[in-house]
Amino acid sequence: MAEPLFRRLALIGVGLIGSSVARVARKRGDIAAEIVANAHTDRSLVRVAELGIADRTEIDPARAVEGADCVMLCAPVGAFADLAERIAPHLAPGAILTDVGSTKQSVIRDVGPFVPAGVHFVPAHPLAGTEYSGPDSGFATLFEGRWALITPIPGTEPVAIEKVAELWRRCGSMVEEMEPGHHDRVLAVVSHLPHLIAFTICGTADDLADETRNEVLQFAASGFRDFTRIAASDPVMWRDVFLNNREALLEMLARFMEDAQAMARAVRWGDASYIEDKVERGRKIRRSLIELKQA
Amino acid sequence: MAEPLFRRLALIGVGLIGSSVARVARKRGDIAAEIVANAHTDRSLVRVAELGIADRTEIDPARAVEGADCVMLCAPVGAFADLAERIAPHLAPGAILTDVGSTKQSVIRDVGPFVPAGVHFVPAHPLAGTEYSGPDSGFATLFEGRWALITPIPGTEPVAIEKVAELWRRCGSMVEEMEPGHHDRVLAVVSHLPHLIAFTICGTADDLADETRNEVLQFAASGFRDFTRIAASDPVMWRDVFLNNREALLEMLARFMEDAQAMARAVRWGDASYIEDKVERGRKIRRSLIELKQA
Repeated sequence: MAEPLFRRLALIGVGLIGSSVARVARKRGDIAAEIVANAHTDRSLVRVAELGIADRTEIDPARAVEGADCVMLCAPVGAFADLAERIAPHLAPGAILTDVGSTKQSVIRDVGPFVPAGVHFVPAHPLAGTEYSGPDSGFATLFEGRWALITPIPGTEPVAIEKVAELWRRCGSMVEEMEPGHHDRVLAVVSHLPHLIAFTICGTADDLADETRNEVLQFAASGFRDFTRIAASDPVMWRDVFLNNREALLEMLARFMEDAQAMARAVRWGDASYIEDKVERGRKIRRSLIELKQA
Repeated sequence: MAEPLFRRLALIGVGLIGSSVARVARKRGDIAAEIVANAHTDRSLVRVAELGIADRTEIDPARAVEGADCVMLCAPVGAFADLAERIAPHLAPGAILTDVGSTKQSVIRDVGPFVPAGVHFVPAHPLAGTEYSGPDSGFATLFEGRWALITPIPGTEPVAIEKVAELWRRCGSMVEEMEPGHHDRVLAVVSHLPHLIAFTICGTADDLADETRNEVLQFAASGFRDFTRIAASDPVMWRDVFLNNREALLEMLARFMEDAQAMARAVRWGDASYIEDKVERGRKIRRSLIELKQA
């Protein structure tokens, strides 16, 4: 077995992502010699202890990071500013501080100012997840074959970036670097906007008159059913993502709304070739994804 | 084995649905003693013959229906008026004419006027499908555990309705009757609107500047990837569905757009509790579906 990358890995948050990192680190042994788990409820920590996926649990994030040479923020991004302020004075000199948040500009804005000199802050984002949440929802193979994006701040020591990249490679991910603003625009399209749409259409269905609403549930066909799967995700996490990628999300949503209005107009006026063309483009995109092995 | 329901079943169209009906009828033997397949291209009929899922293939729909005691329209709904006009004079007295179209009011409008006296017209819609199309995409278990909705016209002989219901039960479906207009409103929400949205967002992504567009494809996360799956469906079929369920689809789309605008406003003004509430409703709907075993 390879030398462990880190002596002590502190996971701040042990939901779907944090608990999956704990599981794979536990299973492989070459990611961290010791795993410390922190959560904001005792209930989560009790569950982590029962699952046996951490060496130690710690309800105080400041104590959880003490002596850790890698600290990974795995909480909803809206909690990052507060967490960073609390843990900053306790970070070990030379430690790597990284995260898994879905919005990178906000993380750099919220965490950056608190990072002490001598601590290496390396924002990252594994593109993996399911609609489930909490310590029980994680699994060791979650990151296998998925991308992990690292969005380094200019001037960061290459050795620190490489250690975070190697952590994700050992989790089974493919790693790429990306500029934080660009990350946020790409994620707005591939993840944040689809989730916002899925949540919205579930609300639209929920608002229908009782008879139709009940039948919508009874006869949920493919399409709506797939949207509800996406929409089953964690409310606090997604609320935070939307509020912390506001600009890019609103821009992509505005583009989408214009396009949806154009489709509505084509349906109203019977513009068959416009509709056919749009459906064809959907197919083309799907084929590109299959060729890129992303589907 | 039970007595076959029909002596001769004529399938007008052998794409995903028609070829799946052929397969299950072939496999069970108690749906029809003989299966005649019609398609609008020689290529599809050659493939049907190679697959061995019909007793006879016939490129002329008028000849395909001759002597059949059950005729099932399985073409895109936009072709129904023309098909009905062509086959009507050739329908056998006492035959059942049914269909599998996703829009029921338009089918009744387009087919109804051509149905000769003595022929029983029973519109139906199996809620089953995948994103694939053509004779090769079908499979015998497609309808198992799925709903088949029958939308009878007032005055139809109950025996004819029951035979169509029994056909779908033998395909493995659960059967329910529904008023055609109500069917169209329910399907607008559970199927047509989600497909319109999925096609639209693929177009929105396809329109992005090259660099972002390429990365959207490269890093397609859950969410967008699920939408592209839905969007890979048959363009002609969906064009016809949208144009033939215009009123209900436009109404549901308008409601969805209002709701999406309200979400945009909440994101812009940082209304966290509004967003959280909407996400919670998505979860609630998902839980209802799971309880109803529709997910």
